[in-house]
Amino acid sequence: MLNRRTDLAVEARELWEQSAGQTTALEGVEARDGTREGFSVTTVRVLDERGSRALGKPVGTYVTLELSGLLRREEEAFPRAARALAAELSALLKLPDRAPVLVVGLGNRAITPDAVGPLAAGHTMVTRHLVERAPEHFGSFRPVSALAAGVLGTTGMESGELVSALVEKVEPACVLAVDALASRSLDRLCRTVQLADTGIVPGSGVGNSRAALNRETLGVPVIAVGAPTVVDAATLAADMLAGAGRGEVDPDTLWGGREGLIVTPKDIDAQMADLAKVIGYGINLALHPGLSLADVEMFLS
Amino acid sequence: MLNRRTDLAVEARELWEQSAGQTTALEGVEARDGTREGFSVTTVRVLDERGSRALGKPVGTYVTLELSGLLRREEEAFPRAARALAAELSALLKLPDRAPVLVVGLGNRAITPDAVGPLAAGHTMVTRHLVERAPEHFGSFRPVSALAAGVLGTTGMESGELVSALVEKVEPACVLAVDALASRSLDRLCRTVQLADTGIVPGSGVGNSRAALNRETLGVPVIAVGAPTVVDAATLAADMLAGAGRGEVDPDTLWGGREGLIVTPKDIDAQMADLAKVIGYGINLALHPGLSLADVEMFLS
Amino acid sequence: MLNRRTDLAVEARELWEQSAGQTTALEGVEARDGTREGFSVTTVRVLDERGSRALGKPVGTYVTLELSGLLRREEEAFPRAARALAAELSALLKLPDRAPVLVVGLGNRAITPDAVGPLAAGHTMVTRHLVERAPEHFGSFRPVSALAAGVLGTTGMESGELVSALVEKVEPACVLAVDALASRSLDRLCRTVQLADTGIVPGSGVGNSRAALNRETLGVPVIAVGAPTVVDAATLAADMLAGAGRGEVDPDTLWGGREGLIVTPKDIDAQMADLAKVIGYGINLALHPGLSLADVEMFLS
Amino acid sequence: MLNRRTDLAVEARELWEQSAGQTTALEGVEARDGTREGFSVTTVRVLDERGSRALGKPVGTYVTLELSGLLRREEEAFPRAARALAAELSALLKLPDRAPVLVVGLGNRAITPDAVGPLAAGHTMVTRHLVERAPEHFGSFRPVSALAAGVLGTTGMESGELVSALVEKVEPACVLAVDALASRSLDRLCRTVQLADTGIVPGSGVGNSRAALNRETLGVPVIAVGAPTVVDAATLAADMLAGAGRGEVDPDTLWGGREGLIVTPKDIDAQMADLAKVIGYGINLALHPGLSLADVEMFLS
Repeated sequence: MLNRRTDLAVEARELWEQSAGQTTALEGVEARDGTREGFSVTTVRVLDERGSRALGKPVGTYVTLELSGLLRREEEAFPRAARALAAELSALLKLPDRAPVLVVGLGNRAITPDAVGPLAAGHTMVTRHLVERAPEHFGSFRPVSALAAGVLGTTGMESGELVSALVEKVEPACVLAVDALASRSLDRLCRTVQLADTGIVPGSGVGNSRAALNRETLGVPVIAVGAPTVVDAATLAADMLAGAGRGEVDPDTLWGGREGLIVTPKDIDAQMADLAKVIGYGINLALHPGLSLADVEMFLS
Repeated sequence: MLNRRTDLAVEARELWEQSAGQTTALEGVEARDGTREGFSVTTVRVLDERGSRALGKPVGTYVTLELSGLLRREEEAFPRAARALAAELSALLKLPDRAPVLVVGLGNRAITPDAVGPLAAGHTMVTRHLVERAPEHFGSFRPVSALAAGVLGTTGMESGELVSALVEKVEPACVLAVDALASRSLDRLCRTVQLADTGIVPGSGVGNSRAALNRETLGVPVIAVGAPTVVDAATLAADMLAGAGRGEVDPDTLWGGREGLIVTPKDIDAQMADLAKVIGYGINLALHPGLSLADVEMFLS
Repeated sequence: MLNRRTDLAVEARELWEQSAGQTTALEGVEARDGTREGFSVTTVRVLDERGSRALGKPVGTYVTLELSGLLRREEEAFPRAARALAAELSALLKLPDRAPVLVVGLGNRAITPDAVGPLAAGHTMVTRHLVERAPEHFGSFRPVSALAAGVLGTTGMESGELVSALVEKVEPACVLAVDALASRSLDRLCRTVQLADTGIVPGSGVGNSRAALNRETLGVPVIAVGAPTVVDAATLAADMLAGAGRGEVDPDTLWGGREGLIVTPKDIDAQMADLAKVIGYGINLALHPGLSLADVEMFLS
Repeated sequence: MLNRRTDLAVEARELWEQSAGQTTALEGVEARDGTREGFSVTTVRVLDERGSRALGKPVGTYVTLELSGLLRREEEAFPRAARALAAELSALLKLPDRAPVLVVGLGNRAITPDAVGPLAAGHTMVTRHLVERAPEHFGSFRPVSALAAGVLGTTGMESGELVSALVEKVEPACVLAVDALASRSLDRLCRTVQLADTGIVPGSGVGNSRAALNRETLGVPVIAVGAPTVVDAATLAADMLAGAGRGEVDPDTLWGGREGLIVTPKDIDAQMADLAKVIGYGINLALHPGLSLADVEMFLS
């Protein structure tokens, strides 16, 4: 299997097709292309064990938005991207109107390409305390709580442990987990958002596996919102050498002494800020369907 | 009672003495002055209900370190301050060697004078995962976990709720809660650290009361580590007018429209960074008594 | 004279009136109130030496915008504020269409209440290099350059020296200098912008006097854009004690040992960010009159 | 010539040797290896036009320190690195004791791998104003001024223009210019500092050429202090493909649509902070030879 080191189902499918050739059908997987607000949307459904084994991904639905216009600063790209994300997210969430939600930002805020989760959590409209304390004004809102969960090295706790503790206390109907992903493709870097109703399963990204955050471990549905922000440099090199006819190369044997090298855009700080805002605003529009972007802006300022 | 709007027991005692005059004895309260590493240390013990009512503070021990040398950048001020804090903290903690501890940074990291808790949590040596996963190297360490708990407005959860959820999961023998305090005295601003074995009881600081973090609510001892970083501007004004012979003035009637004004040093950003580092390193030395400051520096870098 | 320790002409005038009583006329000073985009605008003209002596301000025009709506997050407050500032600034600038301008952000970016200048410089549309290198696309733009000038303690150079060096090289038709000001009034804190065609004359603010930036020292007109972000705590206290009937008190005798204490909003970080953006966008609209706010947003993103 | 896209003389020499084979001598270039404080030091001297053409570097001396121990957090690595850098820098500087120096931090502080210059400027002991204003205390110090010069896109001015303006005003005996470099080798990333007495000549790094900063343009000697913080991803890929036997590949044809991709360590934020501190402290020790690291620490805090 070549599906190591990609967190994107759409990419795992491409890799499968490259390795399997054109003749074999990928059974147990369904894919559909569409557009939303002018952006390409690919929905990959892993239907059963066959599909799961082939792609190395749990059974479930994976929606990929290509937000390439965002980077080119096209007019109205931000509101279109936030609305597209909200629409796709709503379709996955299938939540009653006022069912409480917990938004979790995963990743290390001190490491720029890993900070998209904490940054997006910071753009989330937090309403749980308002609904409880001022129901006369906020009674019609969905109760939303949020936390940047830190990482094992800074908390001593697995994200899974921490989120599980919160779920027991807050009792949300659903957890939304925002995280940085690893891609194999430079084309998708900082331009793509993947929504998955499977939660987050450790070990599929660049190092730093975390305990799973999914319905099995948390007892409630977990929607993962992920954005590829790095390509592992060793994986990229191995892919290139394979492409150059050198056959399979074990990425771990390349630049042995220098782990942790990544390929990333030079202006990663600005791109993280942009992506995190799109994700946060998209989540807000999905969780509070009556609000406009201007309402969200006013609430958060 | 004049003890509103000070979080410092030492200050509550001064205010009581000012209002009561020299003739009355303050019963149920014991105070002792000393020095540690060249810094003044005042220990106020609230012994019983009489003392508690007089000072408006729960029964317990309150230790105040005056770190004035720190600001004057005296030679070796930082290591002396960290060791003094560690020594006083150890005396309050009375913990078995490897009993696990949870360090919680309270306050809003986006508001500079409120960020001392999150910043100090960031200087904490987190070891819980290492003790569990690499006992051959870290088996002799105390398991420490840490979290910046955010604030109600950014999480939708009371700090008390959040910490209570973590305590159930992590099962520490003790919680250390670091927080910014309000002082009435400009002299103590950013120069003082108060340790208290009473935990944190809401409503004694500048606004923003939080649900209590103490043995009653969490089931384990809570040591509060607090640093006065602001003086409420309205309280200061009321104190000054009272001092000028205008009698008691209700602070809330001053500048009615402008809540949230504080008195603070102009270089608050730098002073918060310094204080948070002293607190974090003092906590590390207290929790890992075999380590030197150089060891801590190496671990954290 | 009581006009020490205010940088605002409108405040100097109020102080004069308080001290002089209602019977005397303030000669050599003209004042006019108006509104712009719903905000109050006060224009104080210091006409001659008599006015200059009375207010302690150089002869010239001082325009004060009260942006109180901004803080209350009224709808459309940001675009209205940016347009109001642009309109008043244009009236002072009186510049030919493509005359080059140098925008200078004064103050220390590491000290939050002093950072409004560097932050505003960061929101400035810089076009000088584009006009020179790609005249086919940018030939119709005004050439604008910008610099955060740092402070004496971090550069070893007076802002005046540094800006003078740049003026000789860049040869702008006008310098716009953005700076944090000191106010005496808590009401105006972070809610007011003063535009002055007199440049910046040292010694009128909270400490840290800087060499003058004006037509005399730089050889070109200097428009000062200032925002009061702090009230000096000692001045405030002296004012309060005077108000309480204690007569004139020398602020420098209050809390002698603790210089550098200021009164400021608790959320100063967020308020600085908001103010700096209004100022930067207002400058952009004034310097590039053909552009809309959306154009500016697109250019800067 | 293969020397495009490396800023390091030591690397240009390696590339020349690879392309020329072992049989040819590299004339006009002298190289010498040594150690300083336990770190490897390579000194490459480009002696004449032949050497300059072969390496694509101006005639002059290039000193490369390999600070690999720094990253492995060896004991005392920081003070050893700062002293090693100071010793090599002093040897290049050859300045009279109190000759004034201007330190310039080049690069964009908003782009992490480009921020090493501005960050190092922030660690520089600035003394010019103290020597002028308090000669009784600081008369024995060398007058040092410093500036983070920004980049063309944020100032509208070439770094060369800006520094030239300052040199005319401040009249330093020497300019020290700190900048991020591009390397071709992943091994050297964030582990190497190059000192060069040739100044900075545009066009030898990753894109973003700047006007030259050297004796010709500024009229005083310019010592460049550079640290490789990125490897251009396209160059790396072309090198790998060439290594894999695909022959010469034009990097610009790889991933045409995605310029600005770099290879960098995942924790680039922390590594930039460490490197900038070593560089700043090394500069301080070189410019103020009587001071210890503890003195520098005290001065800057």
